[in-house]
Amino acid sequence: MSTTWPEKEKAVARAAFDRAASAAEKEIIKRHAAYPLESLDDLWNLEQEIRKWRKEHGYIFQYRYSHLDECFGICVRRNWLTLENLRGLGEERLQRIRRIASS
Amino acid sequence: MSTTWPEKEKAVARAAFDRAASAAEKEIIKRHAAYPLESLDDLWNLEQEIRKWRKEHGYIFQYRYSHLDECFGICVRRNWLTLENLRGLGEERLQRIRRIASS
Repeated sequence: MSTTWPEKEKAVARAAFDRAASAAEKEIIKRHAAYPLESLDDLWNLEQEIRKWRKEHGYIFQYRYSHLDECFGICVRRNWLTLENLRGLGEERLQRIRRIASS
Repeated sequence: MSTTWPEKEKAVARAAFDRAASAAEKEIIKRHAAYPLESLDDLWNLEQEIRKWRKEHGYIFQYRYSHLDECFGICVRRNWLTLENLRGLGEERLQRIRRIASS
């Protein structure tokens, strides 16, 4: 995995990261609003769901350069980003991201 | 604390317990519906709130005869039961429940 991040790519990455985090946030808030809830058992299950969402979100959105290819790959797969949003990153990096996105 | 539960009192207790558990359930479901939720931080806080509700609910609604006076006292205090709902329990027991309710 390449560890070099030219300044121009860092700016693209920051913008893409923030955009994806915002899209993920909206999706989770919607998922919560749509959660079927009629009993306390449903609510106790919701607690476990939120816990899963929180852990998954925390894993995906770590802003470490060594993690960003994976982050962006997942975000493209989950439709929080398009490849267009990543324009400006190096071609090798984009290939890795596409591979993760389609895995 | 008295440990004797005549059959007639057991029936009163069972009905009161079920009524209170149902009222508590409705209150918690409403509390969740009214929870202000605009961001992921709110949602992560909600996870902690649900956890607190679940633990508190689990503590209060243990159907053990040695625990029922405390259970009913709390339920009266929280307006999930009235003393009228407990009519038929022994006077000594009702006194304990009233004391817990007003503590």
